[in-house]
Amino acid sequence: ASAINSRRSFASSFPRRDEKVLQVAKTNEKSIIGPGAEGPHIKDLSPKTPVVVPSSTEELRGDWVLFHPVYSPEELRSVEVLFRDAKTFSDRVAHTFVKIARWAFDFASGYKHKPLPANAATMSLEELRKGGYLMDESQWLRRILFLESIAAVPGMVAAALRHLRSLRLMRRDHGWIHTLLEEAENERMHLMTFMTLKNPSRLFRAMVLGAQGVFYNAFFLCYLISPSTCHRFVGHLEEEAVVTYTRCIQEIEAGRLPEWTNLPAPEIAKDYWRLGPDAKFLDVVYAVRSDESTHRFVNHSLASLKYESDINPFALQEPDMTTKGSRICFERDESARFAEEAHRKITDRRGEAA
Amino acid sequence: ASAINSRRSFASSFPRRDEKVLQVAKTNEKSIIGPGAEGPHIKDLSPKTPVVVPSSTEELRGDWVLFHPVYSPEELRSVEVLFRDAKTFSDRVAHTFVKIARWAFDFASGYKHKPLPANAATMSLEELRKGGYLMDESQWLRRILFLESIAAVPGMVAAALRHLRSLRLMRRDHGWIHTLLEEAENERMHLMTFMTLKNPSRLFRAMVLGAQGVFYNAFFLCYLISPSTCHRFVGHLEEEAVVTYTRCIQEIEAGRLPEWTNLPAPEIAKDYWRLGPDAKFLDVVYAVRSDESTHRFVNHSLASLKYESDINPFALQEPDMTTKGSRICFERDESARFAEEAHRKITDRRGEAA
Ligand SMILES: [Fe+2]
Ligand SMILES: [Fe+2]
Ligand SMILES: [Fe+2]
Ligand SMILES: [Fe+2]
Repeated sequence: ASAINSRRSFASSFPRRDEKVLQVAKTNEKSIIGPGAEGPHIKDLSPKTPVVVPSSTEELRGDWVLFHPVYSPEELRSVEVLFRDAKTFSDRVAHTFVKIARWAFDFASGYKHKPLPANAATMSLEELRKGGYLMDESQWLRRILFLESIAAVPGMVAAALRHLRSLRLMRRDHGWIHTLLEEAENERMHLMTFMTLKNPSRLFRAMVLGAQGVFYNAFFLCYLISPSTCHRFVGHLEEEAVVTYTRCIQEIEAGRLPEWTNLPAPEIAKDYWRLGPDAKFLDVVYAVRSDESTHRFVNHSLASLKYESDINPFALQEPDMTTKGSRICFERDESARFAEEAHRKITDRRGEAA
Repeated sequence: ASAINSRRSFASSFPRRDEKVLQVAKTNEKSIIGPGAEGPHIKDLSPKTPVVVPSSTEELRGDWVLFHPVYSPEELRSVEVLFRDAKTFSDRVAHTFVKIARWAFDFASGYKHKPLPANAATMSLEELRKGGYLMDESQWLRRILFLESIAAVPGMVAAALRHLRSLRLMRRDHGWIHTLLEEAENERMHLMTFMTLKNPSRLFRAMVLGAQGVFYNAFFLCYLISPSTCHRFVGHLEEEAVVTYTRCIQEIEAGRLPEWTNLPAPEIAKDYWRLGPDAKFLDVVYAVRSDESTHRFVNHSLASLKYESDINPFALQEPDMTTKGSRICFERDESARFAEEAHRKITDRRGEAA
């Protein structure tokens, strides 16, 4: 109950000017952000543009339709490992849950990260792996598949609950649903990508099934109680995902995962992130890490908003990858300024068109 | 259990050639439908097209981002009242549930549809309303709001469960999720539209909340047990929605709902369906009815597919409105032919581009 209280007291504090931008009058359901704050109308995108299907591959690759990013090399390398400090009681609750989840997850996936011994340089890869200092490709993959099969759950739960909330309160959603669905689809595509490298065992599949059953229901209930705490929780989870993929990149680049050094990217990944025909698996891991830093940024930013009434500041545009990779999140007043700026851009464009 | 059996026996019957098109080999997760069967890649749509915001209105209207139709006058009038007969045991189960739901719903929303008396021509509107022969605007609106607050639930539940299924089985989705999300968003926009005409009472809101709680959980459980039966159920529900809106249109056009005769369309509806600046409320009801006939068609067609392995035939394109308005659904072999044709179009286009 305290988690809710802390959020409530924040909500009831006197709103600064910036915060007003995010708020929506209860009576008329109109956003002062103006046109497009919940994304462009589909009919405003050119419907006549022919669909260009990549000719490099005969097989179907598409399993997605929502927006997802295509990264430049600089953007891929601009992602930093960052952690957000707890500020409120709700933050501490979320952080504690993440620590528990991380422990359970490390245990379930047999994750090892012992510091290398002093004589590591003289030891062979096999000796280091046997000594429990390094994980091999198959251990890494098991960890990643487990992680991704869970990671796609919160976005879908949150989107469904925002949808149901809009229905039962008969109130506009103000752009949250779409961003949450994008996150869910993006995480599912991570899984579909890594899945091409491994055919998991029955035991592993049973563990995934069990974990999904527990996590889906737990997250659903927690989200009903305190959505903001849940977004903070996901923000911290994504911090951990950035750590994991950063470590994986280091291992590949140090040659300690030799099977992956020159492994080509799966076709589905080339199509999804629009990688070049010679793209490597390493490029995929970089792209996935960038996605995770987006989720880190978005969820921590959403957690700082008033869930009940604030518009989603990322409905119209998202910050560039350098911002999302190097900053942990927007605080509420920054979100307000960002939304206002996006609105101004749209208004200016309309002025030009008129 | 019999509902499942009847579906299983259908699935295990010898596949005709057409059905093969829908199927996906279990081992390699590749669809023989080829590129784009799950919708065009977002990057294949022109990303540089400027977002043109309609200048007719200062306020934000967009609460949606997925595809939705814009209808021609002929399309709006091409919708017929249709009913699908039960063919299997599962069909009969679905139909029985709809009859129960319809009864409970008529009861809860105080729906009346007594035949007019012989001397109706001599009676005033007020006398007919008092006699329980006609509903007034406020009774119609109560019925519609209740209907729409429930109608947006199944699409989201089905999308979430397809998503979770893809995660836990680590298998591709083959285009179902997006169509289901489109339905959910479309139904929610119906509610957001009609909501602008009424500020419901506390009692009404409590009823909506209770109905959502019951229906969400019931539908979730049923969908876990038999997704095909659930799509059949939704197909029948949408038949009823077409009946209701057809009756509403008749009432407005007969002048028996005078407050709505010249009522202008709400701004949100003008933007969502891209109606003209002088659009009337009646135009909105026509557009909504067309949407309902799409859901009727899509859900009955999905119900006739093999849920576990068939691709969604509507991922690439949907049949035109005349087909969806005048036919109840595609049987499985028709879905296969339709998907194949859509695939051929994409392949031809690729040929031209190369
Ligand atoms: Fe991920
Ligand atoms: Fe993630
Ligand atoms: Fe509807
Ligand atoms: Fe409907």
